[in-house]
Amino acid sequence: MTTRLSGSELAAGIRAEVAAAAAELAAAGTPPRLAVVVATADESSAWYVRSIARAAEKTGIACSVVDLGETATPDRIRAELAALSRDPAVHGIILQTPLPADAVFEDLAASIDPAKDVDGANPLSLGRLAAGLPAFAPATAAAVLALLDHHGIPLSGAHAVVVGRSNVVGKPAAHLLLQRDATVTICHSRTKELAEVTRSADVLVAAVGRPGLVAAEHVAEDAVVIDVGTNPMPDGGLVGDVDAGSVSGRVAALTPVPGGVGPVTTALLLHQTIQAARS
Amino acid sequence: MTTRLSGSELAAGIRAEVAAAAAELAAAGTPPRLAVVVATADESSAWYVRSIARAAEKTGIACSVVDLGETATPDRIRAELAALSRDPAVHGIILQTPLPADAVFEDLAASIDPAKDVDGANPLSLGRLAAGLPAFAPATAAAVLALLDHHGIPLSGAHAVVVGRSNVVGKPAAHLLLQRDATVTICHSRTKELAEVTRSADVLVAAVGRPGLVAAEHVAEDAVVIDVGTNPMPDGGLVGDVDAGSVSGRVAALTPVPGGVGPVTTALLLHQTIQAARS
Repeated sequence: MTTRLSGSELAAGIRAEVAAAAAELAAAGTPPRLAVVVATADESSAWYVRSIARAAEKTGIACSVVDLGETATPDRIRAELAALSRDPAVHGIILQTPLPADAVFEDLAASIDPAKDVDGANPLSLGRLAAGLPAFAPATAAAVLALLDHHGIPLSGAHAVVVGRSNVVGKPAAHLLLQRDATVTICHSRTKELAEVTRSADVLVAAVGRPGLVAAEHVAEDAVVIDVGTNPMPDGGLVGDVDAGSVSGRVAALTPVPGGVGPVTTALLLHQTIQAARS
Repeated sequence: MTTRLSGSELAAGIRAEVAAAAAELAAAGTPPRLAVVVATADESSAWYVRSIARAAEKTGIACSVVDLGETATPDRIRAELAALSRDPAVHGIILQTPLPADAVFEDLAASIDPAKDVDGANPLSLGRLAAGLPAFAPATAAAVLALLDHHGIPLSGAHAVVVGRSNVVGKPAAHLLLQRDATVTICHSRTKELAEVTRSADVLVAAVGRPGLVAAEHVAEDAVVIDVGTNPMPDGGLVGDVDAGSVSGRVAALTPVPGGVGPVTTALLLHQTIQAARS
């Protein structure tokens, strides 16, 4: 029997907390506000930004989408992030991807005030996180940990294997797991014998963005599997990085896609915006 | 037969490069200068600082040791680091450990200008390193990679196991290995069945500061072992984290202590000071 590690209940709980805090902040004269900077015409990005804006507004957080257009220069994007960082009415700032071809995400994100960096995009946030100092983690990485905690999965001494080494998920998730005393392995496209490595995981985090990359041969029977992938399908649906059909029934626990990491990520983005507005 | 991965030849080569560059910089009116901030009466720290100062001066880099005394407050240390960061005659800054009990290393090191942070102590340097942006790595972590490269050890696809998760060695070494496409595992005091994990390493980096922690049962026969430990012995000598007696003859290659990572670390500190002076 594979336990379904749903994120819905957890996300709903976080959203309720956020809504209460947002109302309190507004009453105290600090209505919380999130700004999302966009420089792309990408369809799935637009869909994601709309879903964040909707979720924010439902909980009482105002959301400004600043669309600079797909031809925005790096300097223009940097200037906008700096202006939002200075704006006292803005508490959280997200830099949406993809970016124009000549822009480097980490480089631009360095212009986000770390105190407003609610999606942990500034390299300083990653460094502070890695060094064990207070910092906002990328919401997706934070969601991985929140889900594991919500479902009572022990991490100290466990072997956590993270597949994927992105700056926004794989690396920060690895640091968060390390902070919780897991032994952490980071795998990626160059890893030899991936299945052998992932089979040694007590906790397996799949975060590569390749549908079905993790299948039955990649998992141990007592493993807890967190599927971070949200790969759009031609029919408009989403599938994860885990082949749920072959893994389900075999492992101890698995997050669904959709309904696992996704809703928790959005809820934590809002939660981190509240934290930023409070400080 | 275990190959001895000496650091002496590599360190001498780097020092020669540094000396040539230092002479050039001095002739051009920019004599390179390193500043070491000390706030401890610790004996082995004093010994280490003297050895850095000697090495610097031998290569033509001036070295100022700024001793604030073991009662220095965090604010006093922070102010000194900020002043040195502003001083155009200073190109590299090192914050020596240990620090007074109420001081947090990473927190103070945030006051070192990243452009002068030649021992990669500022969390921003760690974040930039982790994110793949240009940054100074802690010299010890950089020395691990330099030694592996000098001896032609392939890293892409190799399984690198780092024992130790410090901000100054374990974590940055893990990121450097990951950047080179190794599959990376980080172990620590809470790791269960350490020997089983380390035996799966193609490249094993021991960086915990516990004499003899890595013994024969911890290593595979074809492993390359980098011993970062420099543990002082009652007789005044140094031993590593690896029990060389039991490991030597068993593994493919092993760094000696002393004479392995240590001299390369010092040479790279000076090399990074030259890079800082040039930019």
